[in-house]
Amino acid sequence: MSRTVERIRVRYGEADPMGHAYYANYLYWFEQARGTWCRERGFTYKSLEEMGYKLPVVEVYARYRDEAKYDDVIAVHVWVEEIKRAAILFKYEAINETTGRKCTEGYTWHVMIGPERKAVTIPPDIRAMMQV
Amino acid sequence: MSRTVERIRVRYGEADPMGHAYYANYLYWFEQARGTWCRERGFTYKSLEEMGYKLPVVEVYARYRDEAKYDDVIAVHVWVEEIKRAAILFKYEAINETTGRKCTEGYTWHVMIGPERKAVTIPPDIRAMMQV
Amino acid sequence: MSRTVERIRVRYGEADPMGHAYYANYLYWFEQARGTWCRERGFTYKSLEEMGYKLPVVEVYARYRDEAKYDDVIAVHVWVEEIKRAAILFKYEAINETTGRKCTEGYTWHVMIGPERKAVTIPPDIRAMMQV
Amino acid sequence: MSRTVERIRVRYGEADPMGHAYYANYLYWFEQARGTWCRERGFTYKSLEEMGYKLPVVEVYARYRDEAKYDDVIAVHVWVEEIKRAAILFKYEAINETTGRKCTEGYTWHVMIGPERKAVTIPPDIRAMMQV
Repeated sequence: MSRTVERIRVRYGEADPMGHAYYANYLYWFEQARGTWCRERGFTYKSLEEMGYKLPVVEVYARYRDEAKYDDVIAVHVWVEEIKRAAILFKYEAINETTGRKCTEGYTWHVMIGPERKAVTIPPDIRAMMQV
Repeated sequence: MSRTVERIRVRYGEADPMGHAYYANYLYWFEQARGTWCRERGFTYKSLEEMGYKLPVVEVYARYRDEAKYDDVIAVHVWVEEIKRAAILFKYEAINETTGRKCTEGYTWHVMIGPERKAVTIPPDIRAMMQV
Repeated sequence: MSRTVERIRVRYGEADPMGHAYYANYLYWFEQARGTWCRERGFTYKSLEEMGYKLPVVEVYARYRDEAKYDDVIAVHVWVEEIKRAAILFKYEAINETTGRKCTEGYTWHVMIGPERKAVTIPPDIRAMMQV
Repeated sequence: MSRTVERIRVRYGEADPMGHAYYANYLYWFEQARGTWCRERGFTYKSLEEMGYKLPVVEVYARYRDEAKYDDVIAVHVWVEEIKRAAILFKYEAINETTGRKCTEGYTWHVMIGPERKAVTIPPDIRAMMQV
């Protein structure tokens, strides 16, 4: 399925005493990239919540291959790798555009929670938007 | 009015490339100290929200006098300096216990928001707890 | 002096249980806006550090006038209000572009620290760039 | 190998619009727990850095089983699961003490970086401290 690329500049407050982006910040960047991914497919995660759905992260994995420093620009590539009945797998590749090297890759598993606060089958119209 | 002291150790991810606690983190620490301040007076900010009240920050000021480094222990002293009809002023002094020096001082102004999502007179029972 | 505008979308992880941008995040956004302010004037804060200078925040003030919610776009306007011998005053106005209302305004005072780790007169070439 | 338990109260600014601890914060809490783990074994991560060593995270995994809300107390259990020549595997279990349920579990892989900024065999004295 198609990819979305979100460019993010590392903030001073996101870098640690080593001068590198602190490992937890990639999870914020993954989320920001997912938000843009939704927007490029004609909806927003916010609108999903307004319809009574949530898509919380149930699993996250990240592999840190190379560093990202303060002021570096990171291109976070995001795509849907798999859609199950009630779950979605997003994958990520973060390329440090300042160095040209891949810095991080990872994935997040999400479960579709419905208005009853229970896992539900992904509604067909949402599924259709996600498969673009 | 009486003080509460909250001890907080600076996390690696809270320190910046200079090796100092990033300036925004003090606002998290101020909030953590306010939470403990409530608890020491017999209520929690959470219980306030459950009763339909909120106490959002409308103003914040901080003066950074000395650095706090990764792994330093910061003692955040917090007290109520003033209570108006619908507003509260908290003051803070952060002492770096590792160096023995005051690192930061500041204040936050809060407004009491009621169940109608408008500023309201602080209810007498909440006011009573806050004046301890 | 001239203004720079930095557009920032509120991340899910930057919003709190009220659904509003948590107050500390504005300090990250102020920093991001300052970074862009430098870049628009032909230098980077990173290059300043590489030359042995630092410009730590010694004072911050913010007034929260209206809320910013998850996914709202905030336009942070930043400009230099005053330059003293060794200190700089940045001012900020954050406009919530999603609602059209000003959400936050504030300032930060910075001191120029030289290679000897002491406050120094702002070097003329840096001052010249900053006065654009 | 023996466990360390670090108790952490969820800050308001660490909870998201769902009212749950945002997923990235667990990585801060894992780090805080590792710091306490070191301290209980007679050294600090800071002292390791002062000796010229670093132990950056090269891989992280987390499984979110149940929620943690604002003001909940989370007990993060941490232990070393495996030590290789130049790498260490920490494992984590986060128990929400407010609900009594396990909320999150995960691991981090770290590589020992020496004064030459390259992966090195873990020095015997550091290894000895870690195996307690």
